[in-house]
Amino acid sequence: MIIGLDAMGSDLGPAELIAGAVKVAQEKDIQVAIAGDEAQIKAALGSAGPKVSSLIEVFPASQVVTMSDTPSEALRKKKDSSIAVLFELQKEGKVDAVVSAGNSGAVVASAIKYLGRLANIARPGIASVFPTLKEPAVMMDVGANVDCRPRNLLQFGIMSSAYYSIMFGNPRPRVGLLSIGEEIGKGNQQVKEARKLLQNSELNFIGNVEGGDTFQGNVDVIVCDGFVGNICLKLSEGLAEALFKMLKDEIRSSVSAKMGCLFARGVFRNFKKRIDYAEYGGAPLLGMNGITLICHGKSDRTAIKNALLEASELVNNKVNEHILTMLESSDAPKGGDN
Amino acid sequence: MIIGLDAMGSDLGPAELIAGAVKVAQEKDIQVAIAGDEAQIKAALGSAGPKVSSLIEVFPASQVVTMSDTPSEALRKKKDSSIAVLFELQKEGKVDAVVSAGNSGAVVASAIKYLGRLANIARPGIASVFPTLKEPAVMMDVGANVDCRPRNLLQFGIMSSAYYSIMFGNPRPRVGLLSIGEEIGKGNQQVKEARKLLQNSELNFIGNVEGGDTFQGNVDVIVCDGFVGNICLKLSEGLAEALFKMLKDEIRSSVSAKMGCLFARGVFRNFKKRIDYAEYGGAPLLGMNGITLICHGKSDRTAIKNALLEASELVNNKVNEHILTMLESSDAPKGGDN
Repeated sequence: MIIGLDAMGSDLGPAELIAGAVKVAQEKDIQVAIAGDEAQIKAALGSAGPKVSSLIEVFPASQVVTMSDTPSEALRKKKDSSIAVLFELQKEGKVDAVVSAGNSGAVVASAIKYLGRLANIARPGIASVFPTLKEPAVMMDVGANVDCRPRNLLQFGIMSSAYYSIMFGNPRPRVGLLSIGEEIGKGNQQVKEARKLLQNSELNFIGNVEGGDTFQGNVDVIVCDGFVGNICLKLSEGLAEALFKMLKDEIRSSVSAKMGCLFARGVFRNFKKRIDYAEYGGAPLLGMNGITLICHGKSDRTAIKNALLEASELVNNKVNEHILTMLESSDAPKGGDN
Repeated sequence: MIIGLDAMGSDLGPAELIAGAVKVAQEKDIQVAIAGDEAQIKAALGSAGPKVSSLIEVFPASQVVTMSDTPSEALRKKKDSSIAVLFELQKEGKVDAVVSAGNSGAVVASAIKYLGRLANIARPGIASVFPTLKEPAVMMDVGANVDCRPRNLLQFGIMSSAYYSIMFGNPRPRVGLLSIGEEIGKGNQQVKEARKLLQNSELNFIGNVEGGDTFQGNVDVIVCDGFVGNICLKLSEGLAEALFKMLKDEIRSSVSAKMGCLFARGVFRNFKKRIDYAEYGGAPLLGMNGITLICHGKSDRTAIKNALLEASELVNNKVNEHILTMLESSDAPKGGDN
């Protein structure tokens, strides 16, 4: 098994990402194929020792997809980008998964171009892990599809249930449909129709959930379209950051509070860790004929290490076979974008 | 000026709500008409003193709308509820605004039945105040309309701008359209069309904003449909609560942290106050021929006092005349639900 890592296009630069690859090779014996600017990658690898050298292979790529490239520009004009090189390798079966913290639109477009969709999946989507008061929850889709049909939502439920069961060892995750009230009649047209499909599926469907349920730990898989999901994801990140900043401001404005914080320092560290996306690695693009993990642009070495580990879990546990089996038993519509 | 207060149907019971009315009468000389169970109201008022007695009038209502009543049941079967009594009073011009912490669906339905829509407003909606790192922001709609047309979103922008300018003294609030990227091409079909309408309006439109912008203070008015807005509102409340709980758990698990917190106690108090919805009073239902404030079911006396004050501000500053003037100058479509 070899996991592909895109060294380019992230906010923190190649050295930080490569440090994550070195860690995962050193600690977990995982083979990593790194694509990007050869000189920068070799400089970052430096003298990593014989074990790491034997586990890491470098694939030169002469182009970099930047944040300002549109997905179609990236596909058309940057055929030798690190992203394109990696997906070509995955298509040829030379790597088993691609991990990237670069331009996520370009990653999705490249996955679709090089890998293609899984049989009978109408729309691939992105699943994202949220911390809760109990076990983590997964929300899907968080940004790949802005206008969805009810059947897309059913398939998101199936794909993210398969993902959840592999990542968190729960074979029957509770699936909720994100809406604005628990009652059957609550929600927009899309949600009302999706509810019927979910209810008739083999999933462990528990009904509608509300925005506030996301962090309570009473639902494992939260289904929504990519417009709503992306807003939820960004709202949550923004609110957690803002609350931290407010708390810091309050602490700074008081001498006794500053003293108090010397005592409480470990608490804040643990707390931050508990809500830190870096702990969860990357967000999988599910529904493709291959494995793709999209990492936050600000991912540090820990986040990248965790994403590479996550990718190896998904490969080992055959996430796509699992999805296909569940699709068949769950009354999912066959084929077509309807 | 007389503000109507619904004494029934909230989570904390009539006594807590009436304590808010007593405070606002005592401290701000505001006249309040309280509707509900006469015996309970009189008991809660007790011996409030001659000043309060002269400012508060009681309107008996024999029925209570509960949380399990659907809006249509409330309208049909509970014509002598505290909600119905108050809207009848507002219709007759005997009170200038209605404040309720009861069943919000029933409040919206009653407002529509008794007051009717403002001229040329296709859909009324609910605006809600969010705390940010700088000035507060307002989001509209947070739950009255699940399936919206682009023109509804334009009118939400107009109505909430008028509300914002009265509440926060900023005559040209920055209006953002909630989407999943700042670029023109980002968003679902509804948002792409709404963007054109907002761009051509007289509003201070700054373009698309993302979920994470909500708490940064770089946008004053956030426009979205009621499905997305309601999920955002509940997600934010749920996340803030969950973060507090996690922080408390961390503190409880460490002795030195507990000591630290003795020093830092004031910080947490200030912080909670800063993010507390109670500070902001109620959420206005805008677009009706009258003034209606919907309060959180858990509103305490401070929240109710602030909501009654807010209602008096909206009456004094003629929020509806302001909306009508802005509608005219903002190229809004005239009439019809389109």
